[in-house]
Amino acid sequence: MKMLGVLGGMGPLASAEFMRQLTLLTPAARDQDHIPTVLWSDPRVPDRTEARVHGGEDPLPALVNGIRGLEAAGCGAIVIPCNTAHGWFDGMRGATRLPILHIVDAAADELRRQGVAEGPIGLMGTTGTLAMRLYQERLGFECLVAEELQESHVMPAVGLVKANRVAEAYAPLAEVARRLRAQGAKAVVLGCTEIPLGVAAGPALGFPVIDTIAALARAAIGWAKA
Amino acid sequence: MKMLGVLGGMGPLASAEFMRQLTLLTPAARDQDHIPTVLWSDPRVPDRTEARVHGGEDPLPALVNGIRGLEAAGCGAIVIPCNTAHGWFDGMRGATRLPILHIVDAAADELRRQGVAEGPIGLMGTTGTLAMRLYQERLGFECLVAEELQESHVMPAVGLVKANRVAEAYAPLAEVARRLRAQGAKAVVLGCTEIPLGVAAGPALGFPVIDTIAALARAAIGWAKA
Repeated sequence: MKMLGVLGGMGPLASAEFMRQLTLLTPAARDQDHIPTVLWSDPRVPDRTEARVHGGEDPLPALVNGIRGLEAAGCGAIVIPCNTAHGWFDGMRGATRLPILHIVDAAADELRRQGVAEGPIGLMGTTGTLAMRLYQERLGFECLVAEELQESHVMPAVGLVKANRVAEAYAPLAEVARRLRAQGAKAVVLGCTEIPLGVAAGPALGFPVIDTIAALARAAIGWAKA
Repeated sequence: MKMLGVLGGMGPLASAEFMRQLTLLTPAARDQDHIPTVLWSDPRVPDRTEARVHGGEDPLPALVNGIRGLEAAGCGAIVIPCNTAHGWFDGMRGATRLPILHIVDAAADELRRQGVAEGPIGLMGTTGTLAMRLYQERLGFECLVAEELQESHVMPAVGLVKANRVAEAYAPLAEVARRLRAQGAKAVVLGCTEIPLGVAAGPALGFPVIDTIAALARAAIGWAKA
């Protein structure tokens, strides 16, 4: 069986949740039916939004260092449960011969799997992900963004999850998702892997949301079983 | 900051929960405050109880293979979120210069942290763990075991967790824990990393239990911060 490489730690709670979803979504009757996986969880990778929006340290060297570790471990493909890190996708792809499964493609597959055939789609993500237009240029659906709540609601909530204050992240994230729904979103993509953790800490929103952690786990299982 | 190595996949859901507990128990305000970790999750390791009780395939070569991977990744210490695998502790320790934090020592520390000063302690674990007397000879507390429920309740419940049927594992595990409490156990050690997952799927038991996943995570944080 092929070994999956997970370039994680961005943040570490999202990586743990990725491992949980990967396990629970895999058809298995015993340990030996599950997917061999190496998780390189390196939370020291420089902050991706800081790098792109505020001129902070380039995360690419740390990302490539993790890829080297996963290559050395014998992994056959790489997934990255951090949306913003996909802003360095081309740089990472150029640094390795291993395939990297793109999280935006996984989100698009998940929209189709849930029967969402047309937009607009609400998009929540870090300021870096929005600024780099990672979803707008790749998802294949029209995207709505609640720019007026980005710095007041989304970014503080992402920070709360990274600081282990997960329950406090629910209210601001739910407000943004509901705003996007009210503006006509057919579904809302939780396009930062901290966001589904916060959204799961309270009552279900009652409309379709795309958990990009689970979506990436399904893509990984598809690779492993192919 | 030192990198932690996790020899996991036994089972994979317990490894994911270890990563979650490691993250949530670490004092952190941002990604970069968390502990760099490599999780080698190899569910192909031959079944430990099968090996010890029924003459199945020796897991030691697969365990040492994982240790080699963690060494190559640059890890400074190893934890193993699988109690039964500690039956091969001496063989693993002899195969590496890295320290391996012992899960039974972590459980003993957690008993003291919870203020449990004397036994008897209820012990739940796999048939392999009980047969090897991993706890009875190292914990430092008198241990009670519900042998009459071992094959009818404990082992099927462990199997249910490994097969992603976590909620079904609660009732048989809770019954065993309550039996041990009724027999005078001051606390019950959940000495198989599938067991706390099953016990968490229902109402709290109402008496002290030792989650060996969380206990091992605390030991790992202690190592990382030392």
